Amino acid sequence: MGSRNHRHRIALRKTDSVLGRTSVRESLVPYTQVSMADSKHTTLQSEDFDRWYVDVVRRAELADYTPIKGCMVIRPYGFALWERTRDALDAMIKRTGHENMYFPLLIPESYLAKEAEHVKGFAPEVAWVTQGGSKQLEERLAIRPTSETIICSLYADWIHSWRDLPVLINQWANVCRWEKRTRLFLRTTEFLWQEGHTFHETEVEAAAEVDTMLDCYREMAEEWLAMPVISGRKTESEKFAGAGYTLSIEAMMSDGWALQSGTSHYFGRGFSKAYGITFADRDNNLQHPFQTSWGLSTRIIGGLIMAHGDDAGLVLPPRVAPIQVVVVPIARSHEAEGGIVEAACQRLERETSGSVRLRVDRREGIRPGEKFAHWELRGVPLRITAGPRDLADGNVTLVRRVDGEQSVEPLEGLAARLPDLLAAAQRVTFDRAKQRLDDRSVDVKDLDELKQAFEARPAFASAPFCNTTECEDQIKAAVHAVGIRNLRFDRSASGAPCLVCAKPSQHVALIARAY
Amino acid sequence: MGSRNHRHRIALRKTDSVLGRTSVRESLVPYTQVSMADSKHTTLQSEDFDRWYVDVVRRAELADYTPIKGCMVIRPYGFALWERTRDALDAMIKRTGHENMYFPLLIPESYLAKEAEHVKGFAPEVAWVTQGGSKQLEERLAIRPTSETIICSLYADWIHSWRDLPVLINQWANVCRWEKRTRLFLRTTEFLWQEGHTFHETEVEAAAEVDTMLDCYREMAEEWLAMPVISGRKTESEKFAGAGYTLSIEAMMSDGWALQSGTSHYFGRGFSKAYGITFADRDNNLQHPFQTSWGLSTRIIGGLIMAHGDDAGLVLPPRVAPIQVVVVPIARSHEAEGGIVEAACQRLERETSGSVRLRVDRREGIRPGEKFAHWELRGVPLRITAGPRDLADGNVTLVRRVDGEQSVEPLEGLAARLPDLLAAAQRVTFDRAKQRLDDRSVDVKDLDELKQAFEARPAFASAPFCNTTECEDQIKAAVHAVGIRNLRFDRSASGAPCLVCAKPSQHVALIARAY
Repeated sequence: MGSRNHRHRIALRKTDSVLGRTSVRESLVPYTQVSMADSKHTTLQSEDFDRWYVDVVRRAELADYTPIKGCMVIRPYGFALWERTRDALDAMIKRTGHENMYFPLLIPESYLAKEAEHVKGFAPEVAWVTQGGSKQLEERLAIRPTSETIICSLYADWIHSWRDLPVLINQWANVCRWEKRTRLFLRTTEFLWQEGHTFHETEVEAAAEVDTMLDCYREMAEEWLAMPVISGRKTESEKFAGAGYTLSIEAMMSDGWALQSGTSHYFGRGFSKAYGITFADRDNNLQHPFQTSWGLSTRIIGGLIMAHGDDAGLVLPPRVAPIQVVVVPIARSHEAEGGIVEAACQRLERETSGSVRLRVDRREGIRPGEKFAHWELRGVPLRITAGPRDLADGNVTLVRRVDGEQSVEPLEGLAARLPDLLAAAQRVTFDRAKQRLDDRSVDVKDLDELKQAFEARPAFASAPFCNTTECEDQIKAAVHAVGIRNLRFDRSASGAPCLVCAKPSQHVALIARAY
Repeated sequence: MGSRNHRHRIALRKTDSVLGRTSVRESLVPYTQVSMADSKHTTLQSEDFDRWYVDVVRRAELADYTPIKGCMVIRPYGFALWERTRDALDAMIKRTGHENMYFPLLIPESYLAKEAEHVKGFAPEVAWVTQGGSKQLEERLAIRPTSETIICSLYADWIHSWRDLPVLINQWANVCRWEKRTRLFLRTTEFLWQEGHTFHETEVEAAAEVDTMLDCYREMAEEWLAMPVISGRKTESEKFAGAGYTLSIEAMMSDGWALQSGTSHYFGRGFSKAYGITFADRDNNLQHPFQTSWGLSTRIIGGLIMAHGDDAGLVLPPRVAPIQVVVVPIARSHEAEGGIVEAACQRLERETSGSVRLRVDRREGIRPGEKFAHWELRGVPLRITAGPRDLADGNVTLVRRVDGEQSVEPLEGLAARLPDLLAAAQRVTFDRAKQRLDDRSVDVKDLDELKQAFEARPAFASAPFCNTTECEDQIKAAVHAVGIRNLRFDRSASGAPCLVCAKPSQHVALIARAY
């Protein structure tokens, strides 16, 4: 990413005066030039990643701050991105046999308190309703920080026999966690998510469910959002409050930090005992069911932005991009020119209707260069420039957002080729992120190597780890702000010495700085 | 409905002992018999409509009570119904040019208070958050009862010029209104809805928007939910708090009561002045935009149940039914019989895949009669009974839920005919509701005729009305629990005397009892 930023900045200096002085022939303007109008206003990613992030989120009109501390408004473009993500995941959730429901927003304090670990974990983050209408309530109501407690309370009445199992449900909902430091999409007091909750006859079945849903999240991240992830198990200190264990997928952002992008929890029977859920098993003995829960939130949109964005703004994977192809018509004064250009635009609209999310930018009084910057900022995967010069030869110019690859394409048959071109853009977006993940991943053997790995820039370090809290604490102490993201599923230490205590270890820990 | 209920009850008495004693040949059992198992548990509609309603909602597992007073849980079958309704309406909202967003759940008290009428109307119903984490908040936060106030606050920063207009947005969200008397779906403390909000340059454009969205609601009600509605304008006393005027659609439930099923509000510039929203118009003068808002909620699911349901349970219109066709295989002991029946089921599954929402009920240990009652309670529009006797001739038996019409159909080609059969069921469902609306609508000329109209049973009375609050109050006083639902758009009084004061009137008021 660094070298790419550099190229952008040089281009900016070289072309700045040209753009200001002459009327640009847009079909000739290379990719690096047209994003410049934009770069004037957005912080460069390499200079201040945090500010770049907030700039892009706000300027691309994905989301913005509100008068309510820590709460954001999700604007139409950002919400369209979430809708596509949500719909894709919803289809996976249904495909794997789950049904959607809706549980109450408000949870009485006494219900929250039944599972000791859980309430300890969440109580400090709860927003409390104490007044309803003009009345003081007898018992405080929590705005749900998550819904295990109310769901368990209800299913205690609904589950009676092994025939009622498994229960496989999900809800799409808003939740509130009173956060001290907030950040658009990544950490907000209120956020949107799905939370799945399941009840099973056996431990084996529940454990399989936890794996299945983590794999849905992996599929979501990799195949839709083009974000390669590392699946693994959280350590004891990082698991969900009340869980037996927690699995996660971790993605690398373009600054080398990690983002936990989805979690799947195995509960065992902790909650079902605390909430008195029982069923008569096949031998007619009363048992407590095994439970799981799993969630993915609007946070993933923040991940998407940070995983792919560049100095010009967002880079959206075509599968979730609200607009996949933008057509910028180039036609000034000349009547005949306008006719041929508009005809090409209409043809593209007609021929892609229903198959590709294509928009023609017909706004008046805005120069093509500004339009290019506008859609680059918004990360539209493909841009078609339809100008009279190209069209005289039956061509248009195509530019791919992710890598700026440019080509002249015959208009004839282009609409039919767009799905393939979009699939290629999706692949390139994933491959670029995967390349970065590989480039910035490093194996370390001890704490010294760990320190070294983080000296130049944040990395994903992997090391054999004995899985004790003592050694985990020493890792955190060794390098500023790092922690164990998860114990990787794709690697085994096979008895190699723990990077801290040197005892033979089974796990390979993924160590990184994290959002 | 009365005569239909009666028929059911007679059938119950006649067949009760038969069902208890013999093993029934289900393919021969007529429609009225198989719902009996069910009627034993559900209150009859004619005996106690309110109890019937709650019984059906709970027994069909649409929704249920929760430990939180006034809050319901929407169960998978009920939520699937809401999902289909939501998705259909969402498509209409997008088709008419609107985009989805998401605004914060919590609204500071000072923001709520800026529009005087609005806060007066909603403050008594607000749930207040006063504590966040372990801290007392400096300012109370309302859980949104509706979102005008926060939306206006944000758009005050985003609207600058006429070029920014119109703003056409919508959100799907949960809202809370602290209700004293609650009822599943119809009136709950928390409910789900969509709320659309728009800003316009001109009064004419805003007024057209209000009409457009009311017509979307009419389309939703009539063409998807098979509920004929009466569109009109609310009186001053019934309009939304802060609105210039409010339009509504009103549907007749099967007990003759009205249900307000969607509202569309014209705000004029009341809110935009109160919240300081301005734009530079085409002549560069600063103006306040004209606003609208419009909403439809989970309440409509209550309407759907009460509009079509009968003693056997729900009757769902095929377009929104989560399951459109259920297949009940009839095959006991005999091996060969089982083979032919299972083959027919698999063929139906295969041939309807992707075109019809069809489910084969293969549950074991449950008699076909129980399965019939199960799916009738759940309102599945068409039932196919696949038994060896019919199948020996290449046939299955088809029963239509809404009117019990039964036919023997060749299995060959049935899958391809199902969409037409479902469309017919949709039509019959609408026609039956329309017939009832016509039968129970009456024109009245004065208060005596109004009293008479409600003597036997609740009705929809229409009468010339002068549109003053004094006369409206007298109408309410004349007949227990009636009120003006709206001033009908489809009728004009053309100067006929008001039913109360006899002054020449322009409006025809729809007068009814309402949920």
